[in-house]
Amino acid sequence: MAAAAGEVRLIGGWPSPFVLRARVALNLKGVEYEFLQEKFGEKSELLLRSNPVYKKVPVLLHHDKPVCESMIIVEYVDAAWAKSGQAILPADPYERALHRFWAVYIDDKWFPSMFGIAKAQTEEAKAESVEQAWAALKLLEEAFEKLSKGKAFFGGGTIGYVDIALGAYLGWAKVIEQMAGLKLFDEEKTPLLAVWAERFCAHEAVKEVMPETEKLMEFAKMLRGK
Amino acid sequence: MAAAAGEVRLIGGWPSPFVLRARVALNLKGVEYEFLQEKFGEKSELLLRSNPVYKKVPVLLHHDKPVCESMIIVEYVDAAWAKSGQAILPADPYERALHRFWAVYIDDKWFPSMFGIAKAQTEEAKAESVEQAWAALKLLEEAFEKLSKGKAFFGGGTIGYVDIALGAYLGWAKVIEQMAGLKLFDEEKTPLLAVWAERFCAHEAVKEVMPETEKLMEFAKMLRGK
Repeated sequence: MAAAAGEVRLIGGWPSPFVLRARVALNLKGVEYEFLQEKFGEKSELLLRSNPVYKKVPVLLHHDKPVCESMIIVEYVDAAWAKSGQAILPADPYERALHRFWAVYIDDKWFPSMFGIAKAQTEEAKAESVEQAWAALKLLEEAFEKLSKGKAFFGGGTIGYVDIALGAYLGWAKVIEQMAGLKLFDEEKTPLLAVWAERFCAHEAVKEVMPETEKLMEFAKMLRGK
Repeated sequence: MAAAAGEVRLIGGWPSPFVLRARVALNLKGVEYEFLQEKFGEKSELLLRSNPVYKKVPVLLHHDKPVCESMIIVEYVDAAWAKSGQAILPADPYERALHRFWAVYIDDKWFPSMFGIAKAQTEEAKAESVEQAWAALKLLEEAFEKLSKGKAFFGGGTIGYVDIALGAYLGWAKVIEQMAGLKLFDEEKTPLLAVWAERFCAHEAVKEVMPETEKLMEFAKMLRGK
């Protein structure tokens, strides 16, 4: 294992897709870490001290030094444990730029449209968000074709930066699919991504940390009830 | 010079702070490039083809391969010309993560509050944006103290990633200061950043590409007239 106990700690919460990104990256690198779960609705002294700007999870503490923002953590883990496990970002500068571009796109376009479905107050607003989410996935399907080069993941033979960026939302995507009675990762609309989504969830580095859909459903209901 | 003519092209426009970021990065690396200016209000065939997702400048074309999104371009330039000029991002993974964090903060918090001043429809909304912009700069002043380690720039002895992220907005900040009749980079509120701002604009890699405040003012008036 690449890290001694206590050396690496992650402040997080199990339902957060952003925390999940950090956990998958640490798993891919075989880094042992202590998972410090925040209580829902509270912010620990350690969190406030470690991320005073945003006061948000995830925060990675490496030898007590905090790293904030999920994709910055993923990139940090890749570089700090460069010799452990697999590479998460490609080595080639141009390939790196492409992977960064699509990771930004996922947070910028896919995420708001997916959550727009859950937040929609009217059938019209919901239908609009669904169309936007499908359109974003269609572009991501094309990106998958290019980046994966015919292999299993955006990262090629194994999970990479873009896989983590998009894959972390899969738990919540399933909740939204159930609540809205539709399929986002649709076999006909985006066949490559539909297969990829199953493959991602079944991956060794993911399956133990991906929250169960039922637990997320309960959590979502609790949030709605508030 | 690090690149032959025609090898590197930048699709942009002179008033854009995002395009300016790419230009400063290319200058720091001593990379020669062809500057392809888009006509205002139009989108060239080359732009639409090179950035079909966002259809926005800047786009860097390196051997005809497009790189989009300003800070991704800056990082690409740093890596693709690793041996030319100076390093833009620090080599240490933890330092890199810190610099990335503050660059994201600048686009996420400082930029909207600064433009909020210009867009404000009421005195109340304007005052609120001014307070937010000052608060963001106060945090950036603290970040400057940490990152610069007592030297001239966020990047230490010379312009780095965070300098480019924030510095590219200085032209527009001056326009907003004039229009709103106030000082954003204030000597009393944020003394380090006030000095830094002057130093940034006077830097060799910046002074030729930083748009003149008067020209930006005219451009802003033209935009308002539309």
